[in-house]
Amino acid sequence: MRLVSDTEIVAAQAAMAAMPGAIRPVRTPLVPAPDADPTRPLLLKPENLQPTGAFKIRGALHAASAVPETARSRGLVAYSSGNHARAVAYAARAFGMPATVVVPHTAPAAKVAAARALGAEIVPVEVAERERRAHRIADERGATVVPPFDDPAVIAGQGTVGLEIAEDLNGSTGGLPTGHGTAAGGFGWGDELVVLVPVSGGGLISGVGVAVKSVLPKATVIGVEPELAADAQDSLRSGTRRHWPVASRTRTAADGLTAEPSERTFAHMREVVDDIVTVSEEDIAEATGYLARTCHLVAERSGAVTTAAYRHRGALLPETNTVAVVSGGNIDTEELATLLASRDR
Amino acid sequence: MRLVSDTEIVAAQAAMAAMPGAIRPVRTPLVPAPDADPTRPLLLKPENLQPTGAFKIRGALHAASAVPETARSRGLVAYSSGNHARAVAYAARAFGMPATVVVPHTAPAAKVAAARALGAEIVPVEVAERERRAHRIADERGATVVPPFDDPAVIAGQGTVGLEIAEDLNGSTGGLPTGHGTAAGGFGWGDELVVLVPVSGGGLISGVGVAVKSVLPKATVIGVEPELAADAQDSLRSGTRRHWPVASRTRTAADGLTAEPSERTFAHMREVVDDIVTVSEEDIAEATGYLARTCHLVAERSGAVTTAAYRHRGALLPETNTVAVVSGGNIDTEELATLLASRDR
Repeated sequence: MRLVSDTEIVAAQAAMAAMPGAIRPVRTPLVPAPDADPTRPLLLKPENLQPTGAFKIRGALHAASAVPETARSRGLVAYSSGNHARAVAYAARAFGMPATVVVPHTAPAAKVAAARALGAEIVPVEVAERERRAHRIADERGATVVPPFDDPAVIAGQGTVGLEIAEDLNGSTGGLPTGHGTAAGGFGWGDELVVLVPVSGGGLISGVGVAVKSVLPKATVIGVEPELAADAQDSLRSGTRRHWPVASRTRTAADGLTAEPSERTFAHMREVVDDIVTVSEEDIAEATGYLARTCHLVAERSGAVTTAAYRHRGALLPETNTVAVVSGGNIDTEELATLLASRDR
Repeated sequence: MRLVSDTEIVAAQAAMAAMPGAIRPVRTPLVPAPDADPTRPLLLKPENLQPTGAFKIRGALHAASAVPETARSRGLVAYSSGNHARAVAYAARAFGMPATVVVPHTAPAAKVAAARALGAEIVPVEVAERERRAHRIADERGATVVPPFDDPAVIAGQGTVGLEIAEDLNGSTGGLPTGHGTAAGGFGWGDELVVLVPVSGGGLISGVGVAVKSVLPKATVIGVEPELAADAQDSLRSGTRRHWPVASRTRTAADGLTAEPSERTFAHMREVVDDIVTVSEEDIAEATGYLARTCHLVAERSGAVTTAAYRHRGALLPETNTVAVVSGGNIDTEELATLLASRDR
């Protein structure tokens, strides 16, 4: 299977840079964690600051921008229970298109409400039905399906996270064309670094892995999963896609990390991902509290897994300069209040 | 009194850009507030993401970088109970200098601990004594005092916040030399905007006002104070410095906004600040909760006053594109948990 290339990711970045400032993704900075171990400094890539609260806006906007003018009035369709649905609703509105979101009955109410607030039509279905139903709706209406991860345009969009990391680390664009915002002085890390990326369906780590390794070929790219949804680790280590039952994968409270890689994203992961490590539910909760308390970032549990790996699985990681992608921030307010109030966190 | 010029602020930006990435201030982005009123979109400038949790790092680093090589071993001295002390401790460590921080007995323990953790020597004194004591220590040791706001190098450093805002809005550098990180496509706002800045001693709004108006001459710059510490509003509106007793100014829970402008910062404010509005303690608390819940930013109350003004004093502000400087994030964790847990917020 053909992998998404660095050239496609650079093109995605250029497409985003051409969008008006009020629409395009925020060019998130690298934020130093103030109290990191000096032998392995930690930089956070805060994608929770995106207008929809997660990196998903990148892939959705890129896919939406690729829809031909003539097809725009027929709209976009997404099947997702969470941040991707909200991102597709956002992208559709940004390009003046209607959006339909097919959600399982089990979807978190707050995330569904967020997509609805952006003007999307919500179609609730049984979990097993959602992909088929989305495609049927798209066929009937001539609309464009934007898959959550199994799509080259989406992967290229998510990969812009990796380009920005490499740009800011280098203080240059590593030979790539300048994107919308680059740093004029780097961190002096050279190629000596590890990039930690949350893994669910694998769209983010596919794009980030390709982008980072195209600019910094010696970088290590490591995925992070909840112990309770470690199917991608299982697959990567065994060299073949291992399927965990949905009921198993959905045990984790990190509700954004319950999908499984597709053939396409698994092919990317075999090529550009060095390893996948897992974190416990307790460590995810601790890291979520840490990010708010010490780094002033509200992350959702799925977005905090990389910080959890840094803080609690250091022995499994190279002892070197580390970047952690904080992929999203859509956590329930009362849940966050509870995490912050618990004494040992 | 001579005001700090835009040229000095551009020079401060260049000095910061030349610092290693691990030391210099984070080049914070403009973050759209997702649910802002479309007739007056809101962009946040999240200075709470700085390594010390507040914009103060800019002025402190700039002042530290200006200390002659021969004087560095004798160190820096600060008198401050909060974010400035921590910033000076950070800047001193960054340049390999010792730091001494003179703090009142009443200083928030967490903020003092943060300065100590960065290696600063802490000297506790009576509130009324702290400035004199700092200068005596500096004289004895040949050390350099870094004032919290009444200093051209500090004002120029804080002004880089304003340059970055103007750069990102324009998608260019408005004729000024390129700083460390610029956006390649703007927000299409033109000069039609208002910039909201918290006011305490006035160092931040002095620098931001000069910088913003040098690039966007038609921009409106409005300060925000707590109702309980509205001495700067009182002064600006009456045209002469009005002194409120310390006991009066320190009634607000926004502990970073209790200083009073100096002759120098007041002269800047008369020149570049269009008005100062005030916000209630309740509105500050609401805005702090809103920033965490909706924008995924942990702000301290002092940093949330501008968002409070946008949300609760709209009738006093121009109905147009708005930028709010979120100046810091060092809030007590239990306090934040309480704010998030209260139902009506």
